[in-house]
Amino acid sequence: MNPPETKKLRVGAVLFEGFELLDVFGPLEMFGLLRERMELVMVGERAGAVRSNQGPSGVAEFTFAACPPLDVLLVPGGWGTRREVDNAAFVQTLRATAERTAWVATVCTGSALLARTGLLDGKRATSNKLALKWVMTQGPQVQWVAEARWVEDGKYFTSSGVSAGMDMALALIARLFDEATARQIARWAEYDWQDDGTYDPFARQAGLVD
Amino acid sequence: MNPPETKKLRVGAVLFEGFELLDVFGPLEMFGLLRERMELVMVGERAGAVRSNQGPSGVAEFTFAACPPLDVLLVPGGWGTRREVDNAAFVQTLRATAERTAWVATVCTGSALLARTGLLDGKRATSNKLALKWVMTQGPQVQWVAEARWVEDGKYFTSSGVSAGMDMALALIARLFDEATARQIARWAEYDWQDDGTYDPFARQAGLVD
Repeated sequence: MNPPETKKLRVGAVLFEGFELLDVFGPLEMFGLLRERMELVMVGERAGAVRSNQGPSGVAEFTFAACPPLDVLLVPGGWGTRREVDNAAFVQTLRATAERTAWVATVCTGSALLARTGLLDGKRATSNKLALKWVMTQGPQVQWVAEARWVEDGKYFTSSGVSAGMDMALALIARLFDEATARQIARWAEYDWQDDGTYDPFARQAGLVD
Repeated sequence: MNPPETKKLRVGAVLFEGFELLDVFGPLEMFGLLRERMELVMVGERAGAVRSNQGPSGVAEFTFAACPPLDVLLVPGGWGTRREVDNAAFVQTLRATAERTAWVATVCTGSALLARTGLLDGKRATSNKLALKWVMTQGPQVQWVAEARWVEDGKYFTSSGVSAGMDMALALIARLFDEATARQIARWAEYDWQDDGTYDPFARQAGLVD
């Protein structure tokens, strides 16, 4: 008898000019260490090399139109989000992709992009603490949470700034599989997982809470 | 009067097939947040897209031959190192590049690659704790340190597994500029910098120390 075939969960990270490097590659590192159970793709409005906020480029293998079905959609932040929130075609494509994807995760100002789709309206969400005032203007109907490492509301996982994406990715791995799997991944990455989503000294440093 | 012109420090990250995503992009995130003072390039044996251990590709803008002079050379780990340690041409090019670069940093099994150049002989260095026994065979004359988040010896900064590269990068930023700058970068990335290079619970978990 053959072993039962396990379908891998496919993670799609969205690239746009000016994406933040660690917002994409921190979570992808964690998901990618589960190579038997997850596969990773990168997707953009155009396929090919996409320049990050820091300069180095990643490669979008697929356009949104050509992308195979995803199980997890990852939306990064970075200065490029300030431009993309006003890119109506992009926001509409992002909405359509998020609607048909089981889990949607954002890092940093990626939640501003997702907020522009309207899909976060009425939901709890967070973002980068140094950019939160701007982010809130992008989704006035979202229940923004100032003090959180990440926030889970239904299928949406939104995380705080940059490095918080790694903690959120491990929380999502714990939700998709189990906590022991998340802890094993953290150990392989020699990463001290901050597993408390309410932990957030950066909100205080940014003057968002007393 | 014009403001004094400040020469940026150029960081070059080495890409090879099977590099570990976070080994490259964790440190590049930290360096890249200092955009006024550092610039980032990625370099490989061949220019163009290079596939990571996790699947997604980064873009090497330069071959080693065409790469402009570097101030910091960053050597990642990943399963590709198991092949590249026996790639004599690559090891020789890595040695020549490291010799003319002021600072050389490795993440994870990147120290095995650097060890093969001979440049770490007689120096203190560390690596991924789950791979350390193999790494030690790649540099019998290196003074391997089993319990360390990262090790600094002269111009060489070697770090432990995967996520340790971010802590090491901030330590290198503190050395290149000052500690306040490193703390500012950590805050922008909402990253809890582990600033103690001797911190290493993963060595114990791997059974390397009692």
